[in-house]
Amino acid sequence: MTSHIPDLIAKKRDGQEHSRAELETLVLGYTRGEVPDYQISAWLMAIYLRGMTPREVADLTLVMAGSGDQFDLSSLSNTVDKHSTGGVGDKTSLILTPMLAALGLTVAKMSGRGLAHTGGTIDKLESIPGWDGTLSDEAFLAQAREIGLALVGQSKDLAPADGLLYALRDVTATVACLPLIASSIMSKKLASGAQTIVLDVKVGAGAFMKTLDDGRELARAMVDIGSHAGRKVRAVLTDMDAPLGHLAGNSLEVQEAVATLNGHGPHDLTELCVALAVEALAAYGQDPHEAESRARQTLQDGSALAKFRAFVAAQGGDPTFVDHPDKLDVAPGRAEVLAEASGYLQAVDALAVGQAVLVLGGGRERKGEQIDHGVGVELVKKPGEAVQAGEVLARIYHRDGRGLDTALELLRGGLSVGSTQLEVPELILGRVE
Amino acid sequence: MTSHIPDLIAKKRDGQEHSRAELETLVLGYTRGEVPDYQISAWLMAIYLRGMTPREVADLTLVMAGSGDQFDLSSLSNTVDKHSTGGVGDKTSLILTPMLAALGLTVAKMSGRGLAHTGGTIDKLESIPGWDGTLSDEAFLAQAREIGLALVGQSKDLAPADGLLYALRDVTATVACLPLIASSIMSKKLASGAQTIVLDVKVGAGAFMKTLDDGRELARAMVDIGSHAGRKVRAVLTDMDAPLGHLAGNSLEVQEAVATLNGHGPHDLTELCVALAVEALAAYGQDPHEAESRARQTLQDGSALAKFRAFVAAQGGDPTFVDHPDKLDVAPGRAEVLAEASGYLQAVDALAVGQAVLVLGGGRERKGEQIDHGVGVELVKKPGEAVQAGEVLARIYHRDGRGLDTALELLRGGLSVGSTQLEVPELILGRVE
Repeated sequence: MTSHIPDLIAKKRDGQEHSRAELETLVLGYTRGEVPDYQISAWLMAIYLRGMTPREVADLTLVMAGSGDQFDLSSLSNTVDKHSTGGVGDKTSLILTPMLAALGLTVAKMSGRGLAHTGGTIDKLESIPGWDGTLSDEAFLAQAREIGLALVGQSKDLAPADGLLYALRDVTATVACLPLIASSIMSKKLASGAQTIVLDVKVGAGAFMKTLDDGRELARAMVDIGSHAGRKVRAVLTDMDAPLGHLAGNSLEVQEAVATLNGHGPHDLTELCVALAVEALAAYGQDPHEAESRARQTLQDGSALAKFRAFVAAQGGDPTFVDHPDKLDVAPGRAEVLAEASGYLQAVDALAVGQAVLVLGGGRERKGEQIDHGVGVELVKKPGEAVQAGEVLARIYHRDGRGLDTALELLRGGLSVGSTQLEVPELILGRVE
Repeated sequence: MTSHIPDLIAKKRDGQEHSRAELETLVLGYTRGEVPDYQISAWLMAIYLRGMTPREVADLTLVMAGSGDQFDLSSLSNTVDKHSTGGVGDKTSLILTPMLAALGLTVAKMSGRGLAHTGGTIDKLESIPGWDGTLSDEAFLAQAREIGLALVGQSKDLAPADGLLYALRDVTATVACLPLIASSIMSKKLASGAQTIVLDVKVGAGAFMKTLDDGRELARAMVDIGSHAGRKVRAVLTDMDAPLGHLAGNSLEVQEAVATLNGHGPHDLTELCVALAVEALAAYGQDPHEAESRARQTLQDGSALAKFRAFVAAQGGDPTFVDHPDKLDVAPGRAEVLAEASGYLQAVDALAVGQAVLVLGGGRERKGEQIDHGVGVELVKKPGEAVQAGEVLARIYHRDGRGLDTALELLRGGLSVGSTQLEVPELILGRVE
């Protein structure tokens, strides 16, 4: 079975294109434990240095998507999934998904838990007493059909090849490789079953893609994979040098999301959700101008909030916490980071903010760890704002001082005041369809 | 310990040069089992595609040479080792090493056993009753000092990193990589301790290096490694489209070697041995013309034969078999491959000849297998010779018909008669110092 694997490695080593069958031999063989890791790592390095054609990347993605369970959403209409390439304080899914439901689209989505400095949608929703991210397949589909929105945790083994390949890439210096990044993201999205996928590709010093050109290239690769796979994929390129909105931490982010659903959200967060909703509607043929006005409307007329409330209730959550988000458990301890001089707030180190939430107890180092939903960080000032010496830059919500010293140190390092006013870039840097 | 291995892989991936310390971390870490194979295979692929500088290849070789035991030959003067990049029917070592001893140089050499279609010097010498390739270090050095010639089997663990890396390269499509080939060969030679190393680099369709340019590049890389390591290395590039001499098989090759030491050897074999002896003498400052005349002299005046006889006797062999090589056990069975048409013998497939010896029982498929020293193949005609239909092209020496049918089939496939006379290339294609 594995006797001709070196020939396949040699093919990529020499810059040739793999057939779909060859990719199956390599990727499915590895997933089944028949092809050893030392052959796959040599092959991954060959891909890193020789690249892949768009057709090849699409086939690789489809092979990875087919390596495990796949959600069958064919009984639902107008399905939409969303993916973000990561970000601290990114509560977009909490707002965007009820917006999409209010717009007549269907979101039947699997979401993750947080790990290390990044949060997870399931953890955030679990701030709401009673809310449960486990649903049977039947209940999941029925709820999506009825309300237009259902979110579950990682109940299925979607694209197991991706997890195995990622673990190997992580230790063999083959992570930063466009075909492998694109296929990794898209394999899980294809296995998740939605017809339309909107992507939020973060660009900037704090993101995986450092430049707009790199981000555009990744977005293009993912959109192309979608086309090959018969899905509609659209991407928005966004600046990610600062966390979205003002709040990071589970309960705090639900509060900010509900405020946004009430039409009182921070500008950047609102604009990103509108932009992504426009892409989803445009994928279904709607005129972008009309789509934008309809998307904004859902945040003004309460329709998105109503969908969120119905969704929370349908999954066992107490909807009065949506009506009165101040009832959510927020840790009582407070500490503040003050400006040491007058000037302008410089770029905020989003990673430092994420790590602060982690040490406060709001995130987990290892899978399965319990977290404290009530702790977090409030960024009172945003990059580019003028501040006076002694003004509050950020506020920490801690429980009994846990992790406070480290969090203060992280935030003092991540928030700096300078004499020059930072030119804040546009949040939406571009789009790819 | 292994935490920064991905950074080292990334360095080579990005085309940068490794320091000696970095190569030690990777290669010695792998040899000790601390760095896993999947990281080394990704690194090997990066080397394959990014290359190595001459300094880097030399350091890699020295690190590999230092990964296990090393022979200390510093108590001997004018030490010479010889390496051939492989060949069927290559009994050069049997002739060259006593020539070198007769020329006043010292050969204290470790030799291998045959595997698959290639023969090994130790197997060939074991055709001589009583001869033993196991010597204590003291006896080995004393014999080399006294006679100028001692040959032992693989008693020590020389350059274990090479064996481990080779096994990994073999299954990850990273064999055909010049820096890795050169360092593999030279690591064992450096660990073997000789001051001067003469290399026979085979070039041609049947060799690893298909073109003269490739062979020259490999020779250059190995000579450069020697310079960096403070050794004198010289290479002869030879044509290897046909087996050397007429005989393949253990006893048969000893008979041909003794004939050559008596001055009655086949032209190609004699010329190659002279050319390699000239390089060894030239490395010690001798004028090449004088060296050539002295080298030829050892085959005419019996001095090389006398050294061979003394060497055989010193290692327990019965020297009367050197005096009367027809006494050696040669299998009694005979079969012949006849020319099916008149014309000219085309290029001989050396691999087919080697495989024929193997199936007759003269070689081993796996390490440790017993072999039949008496079987073999005689190439009666050489490429380019005119033959008549029905003439004998090759003769098989078999025992009780073992493997005969397959051997006949292999030779019929490997020996063909055509209407055009093959232009036989020069045996010695070039030299590199």
